Amino acid sequence: MVPHLITALNGPINELEQRILESMPAIERWFRLEWMEHTPPFYTSVDVRNAGFKLAPVDTNLFPGGWNNLTPQMLPLAVQAAMAAIEKICPEAKNLLLVPENHTRNSFYLTNVQRLVQIFTQAGLNVRLGSLDPNVTAPTTLPLPDGSELSVEPLIRGKRRLGLKDFDPCTILLNNDLSAGIPAVLENLHEQYLLPPLHAGWAVRRKSQHFDAYEEVAKKFAKLLGMDPWLINPMFGRCGKVDFQSGEGQDCLQTHVDTLIGKVRRKYKEYGIQEKPFVVVKADNGTYGMGIMTVRDAKELADLNRRTKNKMSVIKDGQEVNEVIIQEGVPTYERMNDAVAEPVVYMMDRYVVGGFYRVHADRGIDENLNAPGAQFVPLAFAESHHLPRPGEKPGASAPNRFYMYGVIGRLAMLAASYELEAQDPQAETDY
Amino acid sequence: MVPHLITALNGPINELEQRILESMPAIERWFRLEWMEHTPPFYTSVDVRNAGFKLAPVDTNLFPGGWNNLTPQMLPLAVQAAMAAIEKICPEAKNLLLVPENHTRNSFYLTNVQRLVQIFTQAGLNVRLGSLDPNVTAPTTLPLPDGSELSVEPLIRGKRRLGLKDFDPCTILLNNDLSAGIPAVLENLHEQYLLPPLHAGWAVRRKSQHFDAYEEVAKKFAKLLGMDPWLINPMFGRCGKVDFQSGEGQDCLQTHVDTLIGKVRRKYKEYGIQEKPFVVVKADNGTYGMGIMTVRDAKELADLNRRTKNKMSVIKDGQEVNEVIIQEGVPTYERMNDAVAEPVVYMMDRYVVGGFYRVHADRGIDENLNAPGAQFVPLAFAESHHLPRPGEKPGASAPNRFYMYGVIGRLAMLAASYELEAQDPQAETDY
Repeated sequence: MVPHLITALNGPINELEQRILESMPAIERWFRLEWMEHTPPFYTSVDVRNAGFKLAPVDTNLFPGGWNNLTPQMLPLAVQAAMAAIEKICPEAKNLLLVPENHTRNSFYLTNVQRLVQIFTQAGLNVRLGSLDPNVTAPTTLPLPDGSELSVEPLIRGKRRLGLKDFDPCTILLNNDLSAGIPAVLENLHEQYLLPPLHAGWAVRRKSQHFDAYEEVAKKFAKLLGMDPWLINPMFGRCGKVDFQSGEGQDCLQTHVDTLIGKVRRKYKEYGIQEKPFVVVKADNGTYGMGIMTVRDAKELADLNRRTKNKMSVIKDGQEVNEVIIQEGVPTYERMNDAVAEPVVYMMDRYVVGGFYRVHADRGIDENLNAPGAQFVPLAFAESHHLPRPGEKPGASAPNRFYMYGVIGRLAMLAASYELEAQDPQAETDY
Repeated sequence: MVPHLITALNGPINELEQRILESMPAIERWFRLEWMEHTPPFYTSVDVRNAGFKLAPVDTNLFPGGWNNLTPQMLPLAVQAAMAAIEKICPEAKNLLLVPENHTRNSFYLTNVQRLVQIFTQAGLNVRLGSLDPNVTAPTTLPLPDGSELSVEPLIRGKRRLGLKDFDPCTILLNNDLSAGIPAVLENLHEQYLLPPLHAGWAVRRKSQHFDAYEEVAKKFAKLLGMDPWLINPMFGRCGKVDFQSGEGQDCLQTHVDTLIGKVRRKYKEYGIQEKPFVVVKADNGTYGMGIMTVRDAKELADLNRRTKNKMSVIKDGQEVNEVIIQEGVPTYERMNDAVAEPVVYMMDRYVVGGFYRVHADRGIDENLNAPGAQFVPLAFAESHHLPRPGEKPGASAPNRFYMYGVIGRLAMLAASYELEAQDPQAETDY
């Protein structure tokens, strides 16, 4: 079953689907060549939005949670991809240290951690959990909804290595996005593989740098397919010094919003799209769906209410917002039982291993769906994104649509790879 | 659902299952280290037999057909493994030339070829079919049961490269086991990847060399797990000059059968197994279930009837039998609806990508099931061999049993890797 695409204007994306299917071997080869030059992030999830006239990634997560939302049928793919990843990074590895987020009372998040432990154990590693939380001073047992439990242990930092009591890992895998800053305990670990690298964390990473890289990737890909890159690329601008409480930087914000809405309007006109353009203002280092607002007119910024100001000022782990990205809004026209839906694509190493729909009954087509009340529907992605069916009517076949989403997800992952290379603090000495 | 294991004596294999599950990360790491030293065959299928007291591979196929017997759910794993394989061999490849068997009227076989085309197309290659059959002098369309069709084209051999009209492949993949001998058209192709290599074909390969290598692998693995290698290793002997029609070599055969039955009897005594030992005599270069007979007493060999002599004298593609392997018989005690069943494990590159049960209603527990009338049941292998469930009762959990079968299949694949290295005609100049 494919979620219903409720827009009359789905021609451009149905055409894109057809072109992607026809070019499948060329696309796969193109990715293969890109991965010869660039290293994929260890694991990635990408939020994609399908407007019928445009299909674009809107967020790329390098510390993906939500593995528990994948179906059991998808897990063998994740295990196989994890095997391939480990083989390249540290084939002799026995031990993997997994560092989760600190919010250990969230049973959804813990189930995600349980799933990651399962994947990497099955890939042939002894997996244990080490916490960045200073309150974890002894091994702590966390009960899981299925009746089993996880044990989180305090990290033990030696001069050159990080581990747990009686546990010296070859690789340290972060499932913690470091929004709160880079902890000293993770610095200068030159003997062990720390994945993803520290500069992938939100203490350093910026969405605008990601979308800079994505623009480059989208242009290359669009050239390969002979299409307008705008069809897959959300335009954006940025403001470097914004304070929603004091109003500092509001001019910059209004100018950018105004300019971007104008650009979108021209594109809509070019394609005959009868929609009202909108933009999304986001914290440039934000995650967890925090620090996001939808703006349809620059004037709205002049009188933000207190609630919105508060929402935009502080994000995950209490970090203040002072840099923002202003991104072209891509409405999502997919519906599951009348609720707005957006696909999320999961990748491990260079492989698409699954995905699901994030569905929100109380949100609009132009709003962020990563918010309390969201549901996760792992439907047809399950067995199909690897097996498109050429010849089927564009837009009507789940395998074909999901193959296309897998391609877009991988473009965003490739952009993350470019982004991490550009931001690598060691790049100049290493190359 | 796990097929019923109809033997009171399943203690040793239930214990093996438990030990394999407990040692999972160590086993996966051991394979990882082996694959650092040895190259896996491109693709492999392995017939496994479970006697309850013993679990062993009995045949390892390096040109596996039967991909059509895997479920659609397993295909994404095959595609992902094919991507990994291609990336290592020829990442810049655009074109893959697939060389199938010549029996193009067998719709089951053609469906297998169709499935392989699908897998490699999806992995990002333009796939076309080239025939070794001299009767194929122009592109020939072959109808498939699902209403679609395949096109088989004549091979075009240049001085240094093999291809088709307007098609120059980077890699040539054989799905033809070369039982009829090595065709001149495949020789001296040093510019292209020919997979599997020529010495993997039955014109060169010998089962006894494979089981020599398997014995070495089984001993290493048994040492890792602290167990008797006999539990997973079928004993064997060989006779190099046998003519079933003239009676030549009958002494050798009788002596080996007698000795082997004696050895098996001693092992049965050691384990308290109340079974009558038997051996299987097979053409040392045989395939397709041809040239195989079950022997319970060496005396049976003295008066073989004409039908048996004929059956043992000529195998696939009309090749005469003059070398035989005498292998310890491993009864299969798995049952699907009262029919005898044996698992077949499918691998691509180093990954287990699926499997099925070969089920034969008219055959006994000590007979070859690869015979007309066999059925294929792709059951629980589907989603489970990657996801064992530690803690479940040994012998009762499908994922656990299939994980064990995947381990045994990979041991046989590793043995094939050793075997191919030992037989490589270029080995001495290359290393």
